[in-house]
This record gives sequence, C-alpha cells and structure tokens, in this order.
Amino acid sequence: MHPVIEWKDGAVVMLDQRLLPGATKFIFHRGHLEVARSIREMAIRGAPAIGIAAAYGIALGVAELEASPELDRPGFLEGKFKEIVLAITATRPTAVNLFWAAARMEGVFRAHQADYPRLRRELLAAAVALDREDYENNRSIGRNGQRLLQDGDTVLTHCNAGALATAGYGTALGVVRAAIEAGKRIKVIAGETRPYLQGARLTVWELQEDGIPVTLITDNMAGHVMKKKLAQAVIVGADRIAANGDAANKIGTYSLAVLARHHALPFYVAAPLSTIDPATSDGDGIPIEEREGAEVTSFRGQMTARPQTAVYNPAFDVTPAALITAIITEEKILLPPFGPAIASLAGLRRK
Amino acid sequence: MHPVIEWKDGAVVMLDQRLLPGATKFIFHRGHLEVARSIREMAIRGAPAIGIAAAYGIALGVAELEASPELDRPGFLEGKFKEIVLAITATRPTAVNLFWAAARMEGVFRAHQADYPRLRRELLAAAVALDREDYENNRSIGRNGQRLLQDGDTVLTHCNAGALATAGYGTALGVVRAAIEAGKRIKVIAGETRPYLQGARLTVWELQEDGIPVTLITDNMAGHVMKKKLAQAVIVGADRIAANGDAANKIGTYSLAVLARHHALPFYVAAPLSTIDPATSDGDGIPIEEREGAEVTSFRGQMTARPQTAVYNPAFDVTPAALITAIITEEKILLPPFGPAIASLAGLRRK
Repeated sequence: MHPVIEWKDGAVVMLDQRLLPGATKFIFHRGHLEVARSIREMAIRGAPAIGIAAAYGIALGVAELEASPELDRPGFLEGKFKEIVLAITATRPTAVNLFWAAARMEGVFRAHQADYPRLRRELLAAAVALDREDYENNRSIGRNGQRLLQDGDTVLTHCNAGALATAGYGTALGVVRAAIEAGKRIKVIAGETRPYLQGARLTVWELQEDGIPVTLITDNMAGHVMKKKLAQAVIVGADRIAANGDAANKIGTYSLAVLARHHALPFYVAAPLSTIDPATSDGDGIPIEEREGAEVTSFRGQMTARPQTAVYNPAFDVTPAALITAIITEEKILLPPFGPAIASLAGLRRK
Repeated sequence: MHPVIEWKDGAVVMLDQRLLPGATKFIFHRGHLEVARSIREMAIRGAPAIGIAAAYGIALGVAELEASPELDRPGFLEGKFKEIVLAITATRPTAVNLFWAAARMEGVFRAHQADYPRLRRELLAAAVALDREDYENNRSIGRNGQRLLQDGDTVLTHCNAGALATAGYGTALGVVRAAIEAGKRIKVIAGETRPYLQGARLTVWELQEDGIPVTLITDNMAGHVMKKKLAQAVIVGADRIAANGDAANKIGTYSLAVLARHHALPFYVAAPLSTIDPATSDGDGIPIEEREGAEVTSFRGQMTARPQTAVYNPAFDVTPAALITAIITEEKILLPPFGPAIASLAGLRRK
C-alpha cells in the first residue's frame, strides 16, 4: 500500500482518505496551513498519522520561511515557529499524538534555532524519523499483541486503527496482521463507525487490499454479534490514554467496551507510547472534540435528517480503565492496574 | 399528521416512508401484490403498521377477484385467499403483527366465504377496525406508560416506534406524547438506526412535526450519552415478544438494553398485545430477517464500502427478558417475571 503520508520534493503528500474507498487521490501540501486544514477536515486522521502530519507540517512551515527578508531579525524565527505550531495543533484537540509530535519538533527547534539552514534539515530529519519510528512501533505492537489471539479467532474492531491511521501496518490492525504473519487464521468484523464511516470506508478497504477476511457491520450490530459468539476479542486503537489507563478513542468505543464486558470478551487497546499522556491523570481530563451536526444529518449530499435538526456529535468517548483487559504498546503488554503499569514504562520515562 | 396508511376509493394508500424526510409522497396500491412489495421494500414499516397494511392488502386482494369468471367455482375463492395471504405474509418474517393480522382476516374469511359481496365488505370492515383499534391501543399504551416518566426526563429511543410505525400516535413515542399531554416536559434523543436510518429519517421527522424536542445521535453514541447522564430512560417498540418476554426489535435494541443495564437505566418496551406471540416460547424461536448487504454499503447511491464487501445485515435482534424493566401494553404495564405476566393478560386470552 502507498504511504498515507510522505515528504516528497518539498511537499507533504497525503492520501485524501475522505475519498476512499471510491477514489485514491493524493493532496500535495505546499504550506503548513494546508496541512492544518487537511488534519482539521480529516483528509488524514488517526492519532499516530496526525502526529506524523503535524511533524511534517511544522517542518514545512519552517521551510516556507526561507525567502523571508526578516529571517535574521531577532525573535522572528521563534515567533513564526510558535505560530506554525499553534496552527497545526489547534486543529483537533483529542489525539495527544499531535501535541507530542509538536513537542518533539520544538525540542529540535530549541537545539538548532540559531542556524536556519541546519534547523530546516534537522526538522525534516526529525519528522522522517518520527514517521519511521511509528512504523517500527506498529510492528512491535503487532508482535507483542498477536500473542493474545488464537488461531481461528475473529476480531471485532472499530474505526480505523490500521495502516491508514499510522505510518503503515497499524496498531489494532497491526495486531491482526502480525497474528496472520505468525500463521494464525484471523478474521475481522469491522464496525462501520458512524458518522464518518472510517470502518466501512477505510478498515474494510485496507484489509481487502491485503486479502484479510473482513465482514462489515453497522455499529449497532455489535451486541448481537457478541451474543451470537461471532467474535472472540475486541481490539481498538486510542487517541489519548490517561495516566490511569482511561482511553479516549473514536465515538462508539465505550459502548463496545461495555458490551464486551457483558459478554466476557477481552477488550484490547493497541497504541504506541506517543498516545499515552502521563500529564492527564484520568479520562475526565481529556478534551472531547465535538464536530458539526452535518456529519450526521447528511452523507455526501444525501440528507438523512433535516439540516436544522439538533445533533449531538462528540467525535470521541472515554473508555474507563476498568473495562480494558490490556493495553498493547511497542514496549510491552500492559495489564491492570494500568496506573503502575504505565508509570513503569521505560520508553515513557525517556519522553 | 396524515395517516400512514388508509383505504381510499378502492385503493390502499400509503405514505412512502423511504423518501422521508426529503419528500412526502403517497403510493396508491390497486393490487395486493403491490402492497406486498411495499411491505418487503419497506415503503411502510413498523410492526403494527405492517399488520394494518397486511389487513388492507388482504381485503384488496379479495376485492380484486370481483370480475373473475371463476368466482363461483367451488374451492376457487379459498385457493385464491390462501395465495393472497401467502403473498402478503411472505414479505417479512420477524414482526408477528403481520401473521396476527392475517389470522384475523382469515377468521372473517371463514365466517363469510359463502357470500362474496358480503365477504368483501366484511374484510374491508375488519381491516378498518384493526386500523382504528391500533390507534386506540397506542393511546392506551401512552396513558399507561407515561406514568413511568418524570417531568424533565429525556428518553432515548431507537428506530421509529411512532406514528409512522402504527395507525398513528405510536408505541414508544406514544408514551412520550402522552407524558407531554400530561403536562410533563420530555425530550427525546433518537438513535439514527443504521442501516435504514428510521431514527434519523422518521423519528426525528415526526417529533419535529409535533414540536417535541429531539436530538439526533449516531447509534454508537448511546453508551457515551448514558455515561454522561443525558438520558433517564430507554423506550423502544417491538416486532415480536415471546411468551417469556424476550423481545425482538430493530437491530441495535439489544446493545441499548445491555448499555442501559450497565448504567442502571430503565429499559422499557412499548407494544400492543398484537406483538405478543404466545406460540413462541422464547427469543430463540423468533426468526430474524437478514437483509441485503447493499443497505449497509451504500446510501442513496453513495458508496460507503465496495459493493462486493462481505456484510452481515440482520434486521433485528432479540433482547432477553432479563434486560427489560417493563413491557408497556394497552392493557397494563407488565413487570418481571414476564412469563406469568403475559399469561395473565385478558386481551391475549381472547385472541
């Protein structure tokens, strides 16, 4: 599969995920404000992928300053850098990977701000490194997590925590891919994930591309599917994991976790350490993005309810740690109680 | 609101609910096979409404025989009647109201088959009576059920168990309407009800028409809504209730019942006695209709997943009696254990 995002000839190139599965078109971003818009309007989505987009966007923003006559004015570069970071991070509040990536880029800025040509190179190098790291992390998440699956299992997943949500391979779907690579026969049931249909449009598409058996359901079928014992595990991604293990993820994840508990099914969250936010003590501290009602009342110009309809459209919900069986990271599988398990992560202490 | 279905000048006239909320168009059915098609293709839906459609359809089918030269041939009328009933009842297997209405019409046929002109009149009269009865039953369901709601409550509902699903007024939404008529301030949260979007297209529309405050959510938001204490009760309709109280209803109902139990919210089923099927001992005996995958992979010509995608599309699920707080009927409110409560219904013993 073509990378979801890459740096090419001075542009940030992204697959426009809004057009999937109907069309595969790429957007060439020549400025960081375009990158910010693509994040906000969900041309790219998925917590790790928007972290990578943020890194490339910030590198691009600094590269845009090349021709500025004020480049050598004291404070100019620092002021501009803050503006660029703000434009990129003000797009979507829930996924912490966005802020984590921006903080890493800020570290590079601090180290090299005195030397603009070097700064440009180092920022781009940092973005590329972050991109590659995410891919390697997904492979490690897959290796760690696949031990939780048995030959013949069917995995129920929600939204898209796959190659399209990351630098490639995926978190939740990375676990599925790794289990298949380990010789296990694994099938997937994908919830379509209203309102934005990432499950139908993206998860189904990328699994079909890889020849992995996938069956599509509407989100409200999950309880029935579990009751009929059609799935043996639920695996989802995360947009932010608090210090106690509470996990924000795509709206609908919490309902799945409650349903999994009722049916005694394991409920796994697969996410890189960059998704863990030790500064947020629990789920109550995670900001939940609300999006416009039109996402619910229409689909590609087809009305499902009158445009003036009152809509509640939170993009995420929080699954309490108590409903999570394990959190699968690139370092290890975390088991409850998640507070101490998260505090013990070596990779997090280095952050 | 205009009746969802009525007999007019020798035709069965139905509002085409597939076009709502975009357009209000009526279909004039001049033959019972057209009525059968409208039931199968869901121009009309909702267990009580398709019971009424079945009654009118059967009356229409017998009226169609008027000009037949074989009318006086022994056995002709009986054979034709069986064909008509089969065409009407072979449309949708889950809602028992369809079979209940057909059985009532069959009783009329047995009583009057020797006198064709009278048979025609009596069948039409029986269909009209069944239609009016359903409306009165809904009023009684509302009166009985509204006592369960407090001033200021918000009711979460699923699919459309409203005026559009019945002869008027509604079952679940009848309870809401009656509570409002009793002076209580009640709001509704409507799950959009994928894949057919009866919640978004129908429930929201009919409540807006009546000026009842309604907020639309996607089905997967229900858990989050309950966690945030945005609803105080769940009320749904039913397509078939077994002798032990297990209730089949629109897919997604079972998930809501599990979620309601987890959040200690009351979960009410509102349905007329015609929905109770004492011949089916429990939910395992209720046939669950599976519909075509295209309902999930596209919406009005807009693709959400590739057409060849594997889809699981059960139209209903079964909520076990143990998850139901009360069943609201026109006779009384049934409380657990539902087996004896159902057996004690006077109206059911008369059936």
